[in-house]
Amino acid sequence: MAGVRLGAAEAGIRYKGRTDLVMAELAPGTTVAGVFTRNRCPSAPVEWCRSVLKGGVARAVVVNAGNANVFTGRAGTAAVDATAAATAKLLKCPAHQVFLASTGVIGEMLPHDRLTAALPGLHRTLSPDAWEQAARGIMTTDTFPKAVTTTAPIGGVEVRITGIAKGSGMIAPDMATMLCFVFTDAAIPAIPLQAMLERRVDTSFNRTTVDSDTSTSDTVLLFATGQAKHPPVPVDNGGGPMLREFRAALGELLLELALQVVRDGEGAQKLIRIDVTGAVSVKSAKIIGMAVANSPLVKTAIAGEDANWGRIVMAVGKAGQPAERDRLSVGVGGVWMARDGALVAGYDEAPVVAHMKGHEVQIAIDLGLGRGKATVWTCDLTHGYIDINGSYRS
Amino acid sequence: MAGVRLGAAEAGIRYKGRTDLVMAELAPGTTVAGVFTRNRCPSAPVEWCRSVLKGGVARAVVVNAGNANVFTGRAGTAAVDATAAATAKLLKCPAHQVFLASTGVIGEMLPHDRLTAALPGLHRTLSPDAWEQAARGIMTTDTFPKAVTTTAPIGGVEVRITGIAKGSGMIAPDMATMLCFVFTDAAIPAIPLQAMLERRVDTSFNRTTVDSDTSTSDTVLLFATGQAKHPPVPVDNGGGPMLREFRAALGELLLELALQVVRDGEGAQKLIRIDVTGAVSVKSAKIIGMAVANSPLVKTAIAGEDANWGRIVMAVGKAGQPAERDRLSVGVGGVWMARDGALVAGYDEAPVVAHMKGHEVQIAIDLGLGRGKATVWTCDLTHGYIDINGSYRS
Repeated sequence: MAGVRLGAAEAGIRYKGRTDLVMAELAPGTTVAGVFTRNRCPSAPVEWCRSVLKGGVARAVVVNAGNANVFTGRAGTAAVDATAAATAKLLKCPAHQVFLASTGVIGEMLPHDRLTAALPGLHRTLSPDAWEQAARGIMTTDTFPKAVTTTAPIGGVEVRITGIAKGSGMIAPDMATMLCFVFTDAAIPAIPLQAMLERRVDTSFNRTTVDSDTSTSDTVLLFATGQAKHPPVPVDNGGGPMLREFRAALGELLLELALQVVRDGEGAQKLIRIDVTGAVSVKSAKIIGMAVANSPLVKTAIAGEDANWGRIVMAVGKAGQPAERDRLSVGVGGVWMARDGALVAGYDEAPVVAHMKGHEVQIAIDLGLGRGKATVWTCDLTHGYIDINGSYRS
Repeated sequence: MAGVRLGAAEAGIRYKGRTDLVMAELAPGTTVAGVFTRNRCPSAPVEWCRSVLKGGVARAVVVNAGNANVFTGRAGTAAVDATAAATAKLLKCPAHQVFLASTGVIGEMLPHDRLTAALPGLHRTLSPDAWEQAARGIMTTDTFPKAVTTTAPIGGVEVRITGIAKGSGMIAPDMATMLCFVFTDAAIPAIPLQAMLERRVDTSFNRTTVDSDTSTSDTVLLFATGQAKHPPVPVDNGGGPMLREFRAALGELLLELALQVVRDGEGAQKLIRIDVTGAVSVKSAKIIGMAVANSPLVKTAIAGEDANWGRIVMAVGKAGQPAERDRLSVGVGGVWMARDGALVAGYDEAPVVAHMKGHEVQIAIDLGLGRGKATVWTCDLTHGYIDINGSYRS
């Protein structure tokens, strides 16, 4: 993409025989927007990004996998400072134009000397096409690299948007998920870029969950290099209708990346979509949807391909939101199993059982109370999750 | 116990070759207190109990296992009415003095004709000593029956308190857990009985969680038969200092029953105790403790005997409560691993690893902010939980 050169290298931070360090160099004048975890014990790189985001300008992003640099005290801050300084020296830019992210084990010191030692070599290999290498280099327990690319017109001029993400466990984004980096060659000032990103993250990453555990490192960064052909009238700070199609394209791209993360949820075998309708408000619908999405009993039933809709009722009820048993309806795979508080007369489980055997399971919940609706996504809870997380550090 | 006769029978509601129907007949004049689930889709028996509790008087409690009578519409209410009427006829008492509870699968019709058919035979076998039979008859996925007995003086007179409980999965009591029935031969009016029960449930059942899923059927009932020797001055509606020792004994009994439920958490191999100190308030300490207790990543790490304290930090941070990384300390088994935001210098993992191999794991979290403290309990998350819940209905 115009204005982006990227690549991956082996820094030997934790893993052997695979890349674990990724760098993207951005054209001068690139604007940036970011959203970060609401976890109260954020990583040192998240604190760094929050601070330098105020400048609204980015020349590089550097990401390592294998060590999250979380809960590492003053040494963690020193590691961040050293990495930003080394990158700034290479690119001849101020350190506050370097964005950083780390993912991996929590509480261990980041061996940043290995990272800064690998940076010059990595910098020499950067290319505009190394998207897959970059997506692979930021993986931890992920089983496949995650990337999406799309285009949208701004003022009649086509621009490109490409994003990469990683994430598999510790996924219950309260602001953003693990790590996601989106690049566009459009020229968009930082203020409308930030507003757009916040709004679209809320209807994509923030509607997904793997295990209800909000990461300490959640980061979504959106960079606009401004290297595409400029429209006749430039985008101003107000954003406005000129960005309508770009906004929609960005929203779809973020949702697709978020769903790639859920599909790759630790141990996941099925993607679960939960459509909540008839709630008293959108907020209420989202809370109810997330209560179902985070219920271990619902998730294990789906792993077992058991159409146990009673557990869905339980999860709706525990959400603490307005719900009336005698107005509640529950369906799976397009078949209503329970309507208005009781089992549908003559309900035939066969099509539902067939639907449950697929890789995508759809749950419908109608509260029968109002017009609030929301869709959220999760994955099933399997033996794979226990296997992965009972021995992550070993 | 004086004033209580109980027993169990095979009604064939769902299981074969085991008891599934339990009855306790209570002496005339027995007072009653109860707390129930906050789930918005409660069972028909919970709705019945809430309604008849207003009378403050009980002559019987009837419990079935295998079918929860939840989300069963008008038929569920009819089943409750029929069971209460049949019991009232047997005991020659008003139906509103009969308390009911059901546990098992959600959303299937309760075959109450089998239940009412078995009641007369069961009634003929009641005895004052059948505690174990009663505790066994209410089990579902439980692997052992749960009961505790104790004594306390009231006005210089010794009274007895005995409780039974069931519960293993769908345990995140927001008011009370699955099912728990406590009996005392003390003479205590319904008003102080209710006040005492609510307060003590809050520091016992409401401090435990197995899987974060709040049941639709949670019920704790406390019956006082008044058949013990009466103290020189009777307990009045104010309760007061006369009940001090009784209150403490009741609190210990409820906590012990709650911990039996957690020890028998579906698939559990370890009981986990989480002591939170230094929070800004007791409420904040409880929320932080429950966030750690409900974290699948913390629970799977403990199942894997991995002292992965970084996940504890993550869970503290995601609780949304005041927390400062640089004041936070985390310990396991009496050893502080992290102090004031970073790893303890020279930290030796060996004693912690040894502690993790035991059946009881203790986690200490100090926020370093205030005087709020709370202790909560949970169990580990193992393959057993997935096995049990991927095929519960089949």
